[in-house]
Amino acid sequence: MVKLNLDILSENNRLAERNRGWFEAKHVLALNMVSSPGSGKTSILESTIRSMVETQKLFVIEGDQQTTRDADRIEKSGAPAIQINTGSGCHLDGNMIHLALKKLEIPEHAILFIENVGNLVCPAMFDLGEQKRVVVISVTEGDDKPLKYPYMFETSHLCIINKTDLLPYVDFKVETAMKYARQINPNLEFIMVSVKTGEGMDEWYEWLKKQLQVL
Amino acid sequence: MVKLNLDILSENNRLAERNRGWFEAKHVLALNMVSSPGSGKTSILESTIRSMVETQKLFVIEGDQQTTRDADRIEKSGAPAIQINTGSGCHLDGNMIHLALKKLEIPEHAILFIENVGNLVCPAMFDLGEQKRVVVISVTEGDDKPLKYPYMFETSHLCIINKTDLLPYVDFKVETAMKYARQINPNLEFIMVSVKTGEGMDEWYEWLKKQLQVL
Repeated sequence: MVKLNLDILSENNRLAERNRGWFEAKHVLALNMVSSPGSGKTSILESTIRSMVETQKLFVIEGDQQTTRDADRIEKSGAPAIQINTGSGCHLDGNMIHLALKKLEIPEHAILFIENVGNLVCPAMFDLGEQKRVVVISVTEGDDKPLKYPYMFETSHLCIINKTDLLPYVDFKVETAMKYARQINPNLEFIMVSVKTGEGMDEWYEWLKKQLQVL
Repeated sequence: MVKLNLDILSENNRLAERNRGWFEAKHVLALNMVSSPGSGKTSILESTIRSMVETQKLFVIEGDQQTTRDADRIEKSGAPAIQINTGSGCHLDGNMIHLALKKLEIPEHAILFIENVGNLVCPAMFDLGEQKRVVVISVTEGDDKPLKYPYMFETSHLCIINKTDLLPYVDFKVETAMKYARQINPNLEFIMVSVKTGEGMDEWYEWLKKQLQVL
């Protein structure tokens, strides 16, 4: 089993590098968005698209076990989206992204959001060729998540802490979550947002623009 | 890959049947508790143990990628617990439960809670030999989770909807979540609880006692 897992990961890593080359050639910013189910990835993307679609070229790849609900939501907010249904699979992989890239006609200097399957475990192991990995947690999930799911936090560049509007009603200490996450990954950046109230979203948009500039 | 997955699942199913026989022989009620990360499984178990430990024999197997935090919390609430760290693994399997059963000295007519890794995808495929599977969702996760993660809802017997105290602050329609879940599994039972306020917890305790009686 261990040998086989390594083979799968090694094959995935190879395909991920091909995607990375593709993104590099086209100066496309590809972001792998990961989280638990229900942390608010799709809602963050809807708001982001509505706010930025007039000035930026935005594209979305949606991963879910079943349904095209998320791609439908994204298309309504104004960006082309493609849905990948993984069936019983628990993560997107490099080859799925490669196939999706062929279908989405992505121009140079675009931003490609890849919304992974809601799962803090398996997607951590599968490089998609993205430049940055963004892990979204919500304040309703408990502040010890970084300790319990360390691989995801270790491999991410930015942690968005969502649903800050609910902070008064839950036992979530932002400082504790950040401390635990930094134990695992001292370079992790944080942005706190509430999609519902819009708080913090400007900081996220600025982060995106900064990433585009350094491509 | 498909063939290999079937081999792994077939081997797991064999070991799960062995556990099922063990539970049957000892009239032990074994419950496989599954959910997203942060839905409140551990908090539900803490409250359950504090409420029932005087009158019932309660044992817990805790699954997490890393840390013994949950087992520590459970032991403090008064029940023997054993922690299984799955490392990079995304689910508990039949063999892990078999090994844990050897260490926990579980008497006849006990309740064994198995808290699976927080993951709505992979644990759905791995039978542990449990009599009942309990899926916990929280009202902060979005009411479309049953459609997006259908295998978990298809294979569960009871759905606990947790954090009802947060209903006034989130866009979660209980009826919608139930409707979607019943489309996938018409026999699924529901109990709504708030661990924080205690609302609905008595119904859960009654459900547990009823399961014990029909063993």
